[in-house]
Amino acid sequence: MRMIDLIEKKREGGVLTKEEIQFFVDGYTDGSIPDYQASALLMAIFYKDMTDEEITNLTLAMANSGDVIDLSSIEGIKVDKHSTGGVGDTTTIVLAPLVAAVGVPVAKMSGRGLGHTGGTIDKLEAIPGFEVEIPNDKFINLVNKIQVAVTGQSGNLAPADKKLYALRDVTATVDSIPLIASSIMSKKIASGADAIVLDVTTGDGAFMKNLDDAKRLAQTMVRIGKLAGRNTMAVISDMSQPLGEAIGNTIEIEEAINTLKGNGPEDLTEMVYVLGSQMVVLAEKAETLEEARAMLVEALESGKALEKLKEMISSQGGNPDIVDHPEKMAQAKYTIELPALESGCVREIHAENIGIAAMILGAGRKTKEDSIDYSVGVKLHKKVGMTVEKGETLVTIYSNTDSIEDVKEMLYNNISIGEQVEEPALVRAIITE
Amino acid sequence: MRMIDLIEKKREGGVLTKEEIQFFVDGYTDGSIPDYQASALLMAIFYKDMTDEEITNLTLAMANSGDVIDLSSIEGIKVDKHSTGGVGDTTTIVLAPLVAAVGVPVAKMSGRGLGHTGGTIDKLEAIPGFEVEIPNDKFINLVNKIQVAVTGQSGNLAPADKKLYALRDVTATVDSIPLIASSIMSKKIASGADAIVLDVTTGDGAFMKNLDDAKRLAQTMVRIGKLAGRNTMAVISDMSQPLGEAIGNTIEIEEAINTLKGNGPEDLTEMVYVLGSQMVVLAEKAETLEEARAMLVEALESGKALEKLKEMISSQGGNPDIVDHPEKMAQAKYTIELPALESGCVREIHAENIGIAAMILGAGRKTKEDSIDYSVGVKLHKKVGMTVEKGETLVTIYSNTDSIEDVKEMLYNNISIGEQVEEPALVRAIITE
Repeated sequence: MRMIDLIEKKREGGVLTKEEIQFFVDGYTDGSIPDYQASALLMAIFYKDMTDEEITNLTLAMANSGDVIDLSSIEGIKVDKHSTGGVGDTTTIVLAPLVAAVGVPVAKMSGRGLGHTGGTIDKLEAIPGFEVEIPNDKFINLVNKIQVAVTGQSGNLAPADKKLYALRDVTATVDSIPLIASSIMSKKIASGADAIVLDVTTGDGAFMKNLDDAKRLAQTMVRIGKLAGRNTMAVISDMSQPLGEAIGNTIEIEEAINTLKGNGPEDLTEMVYVLGSQMVVLAEKAETLEEARAMLVEALESGKALEKLKEMISSQGGNPDIVDHPEKMAQAKYTIELPALESGCVREIHAENIGIAAMILGAGRKTKEDSIDYSVGVKLHKKVGMTVEKGETLVTIYSNTDSIEDVKEMLYNNISIGEQVEEPALVRAIITE
Repeated sequence: MRMIDLIEKKREGGVLTKEEIQFFVDGYTDGSIPDYQASALLMAIFYKDMTDEEITNLTLAMANSGDVIDLSSIEGIKVDKHSTGGVGDTTTIVLAPLVAAVGVPVAKMSGRGLGHTGGTIDKLEAIPGFEVEIPNDKFINLVNKIQVAVTGQSGNLAPADKKLYALRDVTATVDSIPLIASSIMSKKIASGADAIVLDVTTGDGAFMKNLDDAKRLAQTMVRIGKLAGRNTMAVISDMSQPLGEAIGNTIEIEEAINTLKGNGPEDLTEMVYVLGSQMVVLAEKAETLEEARAMLVEALESGKALEKLKEMISSQGGNPDIVDHPEKMAQAKYTIELPALESGCVREIHAENIGIAAMILGAGRKTKEDSIDYSVGVKLHKKVGMTVEKGETLVTIYSNTDSIEDVKEMLYNNISIGEQVEEPALVRAIITE
């Protein structure tokens, strides 16, 4: 088999066989196929797309290119959740203890992040003492014992994907549905998931800016998940504005705690119920979404889910006191309130730029080498569709410097106030096939 | 400027500016732009094409990436001729002395070849003593003195094209009209041509298998040649069967000599007049093609052109006696005649495979490291449209081994005899804009 023949076949719109895809993934991973041939193939895929079968074979070949986590010693159906990313997305930290509280085993591998705030793993490190790098056997023991554990990704998880992703990033081949879908799904499968709930975000703050692209990506991932033998479904959710109110690390942990106490932002709470219900059904702990939702509401309202969070924190070395005393986490030096400059309805909150404002404060990394300041961030007091009076607090800024004129200006420029608009629908579609 | 932005622009069908193309060519030549980004751009160009202006800018940037030969000290308009390649194509060796004999300065840089036979430079080396690597000043002096010299290409001619061509070869991006056109034209311009006659071959033995592709390539090259300030025209010629009768090195030199003596194959002679007339007109030595052709016929029939060939050979250190005694060139050990197995009309001579048969005998290189056996080859006694009697000689094989069953079989399999067919038209189109 020769790589050039594979490139030419795909260039002409041909369908690569399982063996050809395996040859490519193996050769690219071990270095026998050079970057320049891989990038030519990626660009041909960008134009000529792949069939579901091709994407499934690519996904499985990448999943099997490194460590594949064996979760078989954990009883029950292991359901993983993946979000395509957004601004202020705190769902994982609420969902993990919540679904664990109704008996769904949560063996969650998560990543660090580049961007507006840290990834889930970074956010958890805002909790004093919380240990995110736990050995595999301890990880499995924890899930068996308390139903939930969250750990960083193994360094050798889907190395083919890691190498290809880095190449796509510098060759303008990121925006390709088959390549995005296989990249996401390969990591979920290598992480040992039996079933997968996908949160495909859409809108200004998301990777998929429009609904049609989000639907195509979601449908592709659901189909290839099923072809790979993993029951998969997707929720397409709105990310035209940030989710919840907090964008930062400490303040998102606090928001997650408040949500588990029943005092969270309405949109975040709803999103957690929507995704959680799907997870409970895929885990076969409930037969219908209604039944699943009722179980989750009970777990939250009874305090069981909050108790599970405390248990999760202490089992991983963290200080569970922060649940009742969030001020024990790192606090920013300055708390600056930004008043509305006019009265009216919040019409738009430009998610991406709000996220960038949080990153400028220090909440996120611009490059891999940057460190994160857990204490900083921004909290939105008014979301789209809400009315505000001139002088009322629009945003609270948590900062370790008081010279933040640029951040203030950025926030004002990216929140528009005017005529009344509707609150945007949170769930845009549910994709089950 | 960032290479990834250029890739993305072209990926979306955008038009690259002159500065962007220069940035790419400079960066790729000096190594600051890596192969994997270049190949992604090449594949995007494959799908999204380039405007004439983009191709012209690419051509000029590649032409200027290395040595640019200065022929200004040669008086007159220097007209170069380029063929996109074929099987048994001996035109350059006839054309160079012929047009020089009517006063057109011929400063010809030519290449070695991979394929069925050697390139023009290899073929000339079949002449004992002929020196093809001559210093630049001597090259120019020769043209000023006797109107003609042929030399190998400078090692640093259009290095950007050399590097890009090698990359295209392994990334399935060879078959792209803008990339083929800019590759050919960049070398012609770097070689110092004032005007260019292109022979774009089409058919089984050519790179462009069908007429439409050949026309598109020819039109593109003519337009970009003019945009680059070089008067350019193209002849689209038939290469469904080999040109002339000889496919080899020594035997093609002999065929060239016979053609200059007026005894050459009809198709080769006609092709030389067609291309030569265009060269004479572009060099402004005649006003019309008819006038030019009459001058060439006179030069050939009077023996002046043959005299010019002798002069050219001796001025470059070769033995001019071979013109009257071709047997002084290396001769093959065996001359094997292949009789027709049936009577009828020659319907098809599959050019590409006939060329491969010659290569198997040793006439051409499969890889750069192979050496060439000048003495071997095949001579076709019957061309398409001619009738043959069973037992009459169809092909003569010149070989240095007598175990050539595979070559015989290949020749028989690729020459079909049957019902009467027309002789194919030699010139398929003339492209002047």
